[in-house]
Amino acid sequence: MTLSDRILMGPGPCNPYPEATEALTRPMLGHLDPDFIALLDETNERLREVFATRNALTFPVSGTGSAGMEAAIVNFVGPGDTVVVAVNGVFGGRMVDIVERSGATAVAVDHEWGQPVDVERVLAAHDSPAMYAMVHAETSTGVESDVAAMGAAKGDALLLVDCVTSLGGVELRVDDWSVDIAYSGTQKCLGVAPGLAPMTVSERALERLNPRPRSWYLDLNMIRDYVTGDGARAYHHTAPISMITSLHAGLGAVLDEGLDVVRRRHRAAGDAVKSGMEKLGFELFAAEGHRLAPLSSISIPDGRLGSRSEAEVRSRLLVDFGVEIGGGLGPVAGKVWRIGTMGHTARLRNVTTLLGALDEIVG
Amino acid sequence: MTLSDRILMGPGPCNPYPEATEALTRPMLGHLDPDFIALLDETNERLREVFATRNALTFPVSGTGSAGMEAAIVNFVGPGDTVVVAVNGVFGGRMVDIVERSGATAVAVDHEWGQPVDVERVLAAHDSPAMYAMVHAETSTGVESDVAAMGAAKGDALLLVDCVTSLGGVELRVDDWSVDIAYSGTQKCLGVAPGLAPMTVSERALERLNPRPRSWYLDLNMIRDYVTGDGARAYHHTAPISMITSLHAGLGAVLDEGLDVVRRRHRAAGDAVKSGMEKLGFELFAAEGHRLAPLSSISIPDGRLGSRSEAEVRSRLLVDFGVEIGGGLGPVAGKVWRIGTMGHTARLRNVTTLLGALDEIVG
Repeated sequence: MTLSDRILMGPGPCNPYPEATEALTRPMLGHLDPDFIALLDETNERLREVFATRNALTFPVSGTGSAGMEAAIVNFVGPGDTVVVAVNGVFGGRMVDIVERSGATAVAVDHEWGQPVDVERVLAAHDSPAMYAMVHAETSTGVESDVAAMGAAKGDALLLVDCVTSLGGVELRVDDWSVDIAYSGTQKCLGVAPGLAPMTVSERALERLNPRPRSWYLDLNMIRDYVTGDGARAYHHTAPISMITSLHAGLGAVLDEGLDVVRRRHRAAGDAVKSGMEKLGFELFAAEGHRLAPLSSISIPDGRLGSRSEAEVRSRLLVDFGVEIGGGLGPVAGKVWRIGTMGHTARLRNVTTLLGALDEIVG
Repeated sequence: MTLSDRILMGPGPCNPYPEATEALTRPMLGHLDPDFIALLDETNERLREVFATRNALTFPVSGTGSAGMEAAIVNFVGPGDTVVVAVNGVFGGRMVDIVERSGATAVAVDHEWGQPVDVERVLAAHDSPAMYAMVHAETSTGVESDVAAMGAAKGDALLLVDCVTSLGGVELRVDDWSVDIAYSGTQKCLGVAPGLAPMTVSERALERLNPRPRSWYLDLNMIRDYVTGDGARAYHHTAPISMITSLHAGLGAVLDEGLDVVRRRHRAAGDAVKSGMEKLGFELFAAEGHRLAPLSSISIPDGRLGSRSEAEVRSRLLVDFGVEIGGGLGPVAGKVWRIGTMGHTARLRNVTTLLGALDEIVG
């Protein structure tokens, strides 16, 4: 079987850093092996650095980003609690669904797609919620919202933030912005394969930890006995050893390059996508001033693709050029493309390739 | 950093097959890439072969074995349902916990540790349960139970079976034995890294699928739109691409060798552990006639280790010889060792190494 070799410029996964790929093949260790525990501890310390937090409970959840979302909700709310959720895309909507399944009441504050979270409207939605939930970087719309403003205004409620497409790619300061619970995914700006959800939890949130959440697999009461502590670690579930080893290496690559340098690289690649696509006659979907660097949402003007459908153009990009970009989700399916420049993919040469290929197909 | 290179003879992870390790580094594909969908389909077809089933919904859950357990429960029962759980070790107990969190009522049928499931007692525990749940191969005790007998007697109830330490290592016939829902883990007899939970679901079980289970991440209503079907696949969560690619290759190695040959290799290695340990003055913990081939549970007679604690001996095995074996869980902690011969580890040379090392330490 011939292996396809893609340039991954969709909404994730990105191309992983070579360091992250190489680490997948290290000799397997047991999940209680002292050498693995040391590697896990170092991974978590690296995660603290990219989250900009000193939270003791900072670790990768053993599932993809959506498992992080579920862990972040079911561990902190349940029947009797109200959660105000800012919905400005697919992932805010997913939070509402998970809040309801947890037994808590969700108050959804709907926004027009392409717009950032309106902090005043979110605050006005309920007097005393247990939690506010929002998405820092909406993967469905390419919009970045102001987490710091929400953190400053949250009052007694917990603040939960989805950082799936922001962690490692744009500024994020969990402690300074008073975020209580944040989660991400490995396959976006961290430049690692999909499969883990880095998560961080404040002391304030831990004081309100649900003693028996509806999920056993994601129960932080037990997981924290494995991922933190100085002495022996209590077995909860078998950690995904190879993926954690890869995350450790990917984070090492990011921190070696320098978090600020990496973010500037994401910004430069995202800017190049946006200006290049405008030059090719496309439009930018996300509201000006709130456009996410690592993921550019592109509106396709009527007639711009001639007789071709947008799916056909994406298929030609994939088959003829080995370049993947993403289609739209939900209400913007068929109208919007999502072009990611994340992790190892966030390099100008990839943007040049994409723009050149698009020009050949629909120039 | 020097990399440790272990022979993994604990209860999992085992040493992965070289083919499974190599596949982790293939070029990353997107989760909607036609080439990845083809690989996923082929992975699921290989899983059907090792599960001995024609179930359409057969796929790897995006989490470790315990995520498979949770998916197998929350999707099929909820408030108002009764689940009879055979408990003959840690993992039966874990099922009880998850059943309760799902909102259903659990009726636990406790067994002495080291004994197999008593089908008659399980059947007598409730008149009309929604589900019977049992563990095929108890990882905490090294006991194999009779799934076929339970399947023949289940009546209208669904039968859920934990196959974490049996799939690929001992005989398992999901369809012939009338198993409705089964799940496993990749890091045991399949010889792949931990991180996925292969699962299979009968048509009969799908007819009773909970329309809105308490978990969003594990909701089979949505997941089946991604993992099955001929046309476009609906995005639910980003699949763990590299891990699935590795599972595909690991299953390929198993099927190339031949499932029966692989099982005989597990049996031979397990037999060598058991007879070798008896010769060294240890005893077998699991009830005779029900001893699991790939995982041998070993009782440590008083005084057999001289002045050394069992933890000290395991530590010397690990540090001086690079060999990992497992300690006991729960009530048998400190009294029992668990020695795995699973996946790539299931070879006589590893048993020879372990027995020789133990003889040097406590001979």
